[in-house]
Amino acid sequence: MRYSRSLIPTLKEDPSDAEVVSHKLMVRAGMMRQVARGIYDLLPLGLRVVRKVERIVREEMNRAGAQEILMPAVCPAELWQESGRWDLYGKELLRIKDRQERDFCFGPTHEEVVTDIVRREVRSYRDLPLNLYQVQSKFRDEIRPRFGLMRGREFLMKDAYSFHATYEDCEREYRHMFDTYTRIFERCALNFRPVEAATGAIGGSMSHEFHVLAESGEDALVSCPSCKYAANVEKAEIRRSLGAEAAVASGAPEKVETPGRRTIEEVSAFLGMAPERFVKTLLFATDRGDTIAALVRGDHELSQDKLVSALKCEWVAMAEPNVVLEHTGAAVGFAGPIGLKIRVVADHAVEGMTDAVTGANQTDYHLKGVDQRRDLPGLEFADLRTAAPGDPCARCADGVYDGHRGIEVGQVFYLGTKYSKAMGATFLDVSGTEQVIEMGCYGIGVTRTAAAAIEQNHDDAGIIWPLAIAPAQVHLINVKVTDEKLTAAADDIYAKLQEAAIEVLYDDRDERAGVKFKDADLIGIPFRVTVGPKGLEKGVAEVKRRGATELEEVGLEHLVRDLSARILAELGKSS
Amino acid sequence: MRYSRSLIPTLKEDPSDAEVVSHKLMVRAGMMRQVARGIYDLLPLGLRVVRKVERIVREEMNRAGAQEILMPAVCPAELWQESGRWDLYGKELLRIKDRQERDFCFGPTHEEVVTDIVRREVRSYRDLPLNLYQVQSKFRDEIRPRFGLMRGREFLMKDAYSFHATYEDCEREYRHMFDTYTRIFERCALNFRPVEAATGAIGGSMSHEFHVLAESGEDALVSCPSCKYAANVEKAEIRRSLGAEAAVASGAPEKVETPGRRTIEEVSAFLGMAPERFVKTLLFATDRGDTIAALVRGDHELSQDKLVSALKCEWVAMAEPNVVLEHTGAAVGFAGPIGLKIRVVADHAVEGMTDAVTGANQTDYHLKGVDQRRDLPGLEFADLRTAAPGDPCARCADGVYDGHRGIEVGQVFYLGTKYSKAMGATFLDVSGTEQVIEMGCYGIGVTRTAAAAIEQNHDDAGIIWPLAIAPAQVHLINVKVTDEKLTAAADDIYAKLQEAAIEVLYDDRDERAGVKFKDADLIGIPFRVTVGPKGLEKGVAEVKRRGATELEEVGLEHLVRDLSARILAELGKSS
Repeated sequence: MRYSRSLIPTLKEDPSDAEVVSHKLMVRAGMMRQVARGIYDLLPLGLRVVRKVERIVREEMNRAGAQEILMPAVCPAELWQESGRWDLYGKELLRIKDRQERDFCFGPTHEEVVTDIVRREVRSYRDLPLNLYQVQSKFRDEIRPRFGLMRGREFLMKDAYSFHATYEDCEREYRHMFDTYTRIFERCALNFRPVEAATGAIGGSMSHEFHVLAESGEDALVSCPSCKYAANVEKAEIRRSLGAEAAVASGAPEKVETPGRRTIEEVSAFLGMAPERFVKTLLFATDRGDTIAALVRGDHELSQDKLVSALKCEWVAMAEPNVVLEHTGAAVGFAGPIGLKIRVVADHAVEGMTDAVTGANQTDYHLKGVDQRRDLPGLEFADLRTAAPGDPCARCADGVYDGHRGIEVGQVFYLGTKYSKAMGATFLDVSGTEQVIEMGCYGIGVTRTAAAAIEQNHDDAGIIWPLAIAPAQVHLINVKVTDEKLTAAADDIYAKLQEAAIEVLYDDRDERAGVKFKDADLIGIPFRVTVGPKGLEKGVAEVKRRGATELEEVGLEHLVRDLSARILAELGKSS
Repeated sequence: MRYSRSLIPTLKEDPSDAEVVSHKLMVRAGMMRQVARGIYDLLPLGLRVVRKVERIVREEMNRAGAQEILMPAVCPAELWQESGRWDLYGKELLRIKDRQERDFCFGPTHEEVVTDIVRREVRSYRDLPLNLYQVQSKFRDEIRPRFGLMRGREFLMKDAYSFHATYEDCEREYRHMFDTYTRIFERCALNFRPVEAATGAIGGSMSHEFHVLAESGEDALVSCPSCKYAANVEKAEIRRSLGAEAAVASGAPEKVETPGRRTIEEVSAFLGMAPERFVKTLLFATDRGDTIAALVRGDHELSQDKLVSALKCEWVAMAEPNVVLEHTGAAVGFAGPIGLKIRVVADHAVEGMTDAVTGANQTDYHLKGVDQRRDLPGLEFADLRTAAPGDPCARCADGVYDGHRGIEVGQVFYLGTKYSKAMGATFLDVSGTEQVIEMGCYGIGVTRTAAAAIEQNHDDAGIIWPLAIAPAQVHLINVKVTDEKLTAAADDIYAKLQEAAIEVLYDDRDERAGVKFKDADLIGIPFRVTVGPKGLEKGVAEVKRRGATELEEVGLEHLVRDLSARILAELGKSS
């Protein structure tokens, strides 16, 4: 593509509304523009990146035996009512009425529609397994769309759904998709990590998120350098260890006045005691209609995902102030476990705590000198806290977690019979008995992967694309287009690169060399090839790898062969 | 792909709701399923066809220098308000409110969004021309969605928009796109015809529709065998010829009672006179707020498109009965031109009519013996009637039209400054003067093209795909999978065909041969290769071209080479 004839509207300044680097750089590099909040135009260079990710995803899904289909964007409400999600999904679901006043939604995900296909077409175990996928624009009406393609409202997604006669076969496909996703992100040449993810109500360990590692990542992850276990902090299991015995406890807890001090920070400062001496008491409502209390040490965070797992319930939600008052007799901020008449679950780190501080179940009062074994005998313990770097790994004897930030770009998920049961997707097994189909689902955010690649690979001057998903492989710069001899040479190189099936952006604009170099750094195509008058006299072009500092002079006679070999070698490594 | 592992749910019976053959066959061949009225799932084989059409479209658009972008499906109302279409578009526009109660629509076309990109990014004549296209799911909320992919509500479309500094450059690109479309449909191996189309308010001859010819086509077309002119009947120009002088007229028109006879058929039967002796008088409201009368011969149909062109107005609409009464003093069905006080325009065929019958402008009365020259002197004439086979061609001296039925699969359109003016898309010309950008737009119905290919290419047994867009190139049938030797041979052929990069559907199901042949005919893959026990003994496979009757025995040793050569030769011809 010739730059002079292409729509690549680069900008000198960061757009005022962009908060993250991928958003800033994609707008500045002329790859996207905003149409409405969270809704974007992908311009030619941006779309080329997205199409490359899409192609890698499609090739690997096909290689894995999945079959591509295309379901509609506009989905009838009836199917969503069958699964129960029409009422549960909330305002992120973009609801639509057609001219006949029938209800539809712009599909944010397609479990219902695909399960409807399968329940209509699958009769026997011989029709299984099936893995059906599509690549499609989705819409999620986020309340605060921001971060460009990282969290847009309309976005491109690959969603796959698999159907099986047995749990074992579903587990086999799950592992197969896990391997397929690993290949996909390896081919995209991204530094990524699959981590065990929270599965919520479904339980088990059958969900993994694939994260592109980047400092700007929204998600906190931990990994164990000893045993390679990695997980989202909400989910990462922590090895049980006893709470420190801080001091010899006095005879009984002592009530102290802490007027208006509700948070750990406030009470800790007021009493002059470190947060790790505190026990936080948090009340939750559950889907079963009861209220429970969860205890974590003052310097720890509670993971609601872990609490749900420990309680084996569907969901929990922070109790309303009036419910807290009812059960504790106190305002929010002064709850404590001693004397509570509801179920209390404590994080392992609370076990054996002595001389600790808790709320007193009386507004403006706390208890000092609490001894867990003495004052809270028979307490129920579980792994409840959000993991952090330095926490002990639960999967090995001596590992200690490292911390990372990640951007979730894919997820594999064991669905079980959640949708197939609700929608009646069954089959006849070998003995002719009707059975419910086992399901898995597997998503990749295609536009998000493109943005995450930038979050991971950039510098102050612009993007540094991995070769496999770059908008082009070579950025050819003609330093001075008014120089006829130079232009003839550059045109010739352009033609020869194209003949060699190398993707080239050819900067043939009548602009100063400085402008061209700046735009090349901003756009981030891996190989920059510069043709200038001095080099031409010597019979060389200057080759620079984006992100590297070295310049290399390469003889014009073997320039194309040389680039071709380097590109093939690098792409071959990851495919 | 192995049939046994693929989702190809063929049916023996036509679906009850399918009216057209492409809909019936795509459902029966397991290529699509309905999700809601006019909304479909594309299953693996159906999607493969659509993706092949899409790839041909994309390759040719890229070759033509157009740049692919991706605009959102969910478009903000503000842009549509700027162009005025938010109010004009009516109920076919699927309107959406987001969680903030802001108005959006599911884009049925993207003139507004693309013009918004260009007005923001284009400053100077140096930034032009531009041709931007996308391939995307569109939604048009048709009142009676039917005919499967021929007229669905959600469908896949390629839409391109070009931007130019001058009319001449826009015209050049228009011709370039015309040639590109010709290449695209040639590569799809479809029998098609580009025809001049009605342009409505914009005028001129700068719109062509591309029609796939098929008896089931919705559109009536005429073409001249002498000069190759072709057009939609609403638009096809008819050579002016005088009306037949039927008989010597009497001295003056004679009023006759025609009680309750309103239509030409009724009055013609009642008076015992042929329809061609009648003059139909039709009253229309125009966008200018006036009412006019249009005259056509009783056996002719008025073309509203031609009337709009003749009046040089934006639109016309049949006058309401009270307006007819006001201007004619009579109920609908008895209007006549004599004595009317409004503008009257007559089709050329009315010129010179004698002893004709018209309405009498009095309920239940007509006039006989009308002589146009005597009774309607100074009448304004124009080409107003819908063309029909047998009409004289206006572009040459002696051509007479042939008739065809067509399915519109593409349209190229000169837009002029309709959108750029309304939305302020301007540029600075060489002299630094601000000018409005000239625009063209170019659409191809991708899913519709797939369906039209079936309407044109099928027989009683099923689809007959053109090779270029078939879901696979070879349909390999293993006659008896329980025969181990046979299966080993068929598996080997399958592997070798894949190695040769031939797309194969391999029917490895444990089914009777008859079932497999029926499914192969239904699905319509061009080359059927059958491996059976008798042939295997002789060392041959049976090759049959779908749609042909001959069977051919090909030696196994050169089967792959032979098929490969035939496929390459055929695809090469059209690419």
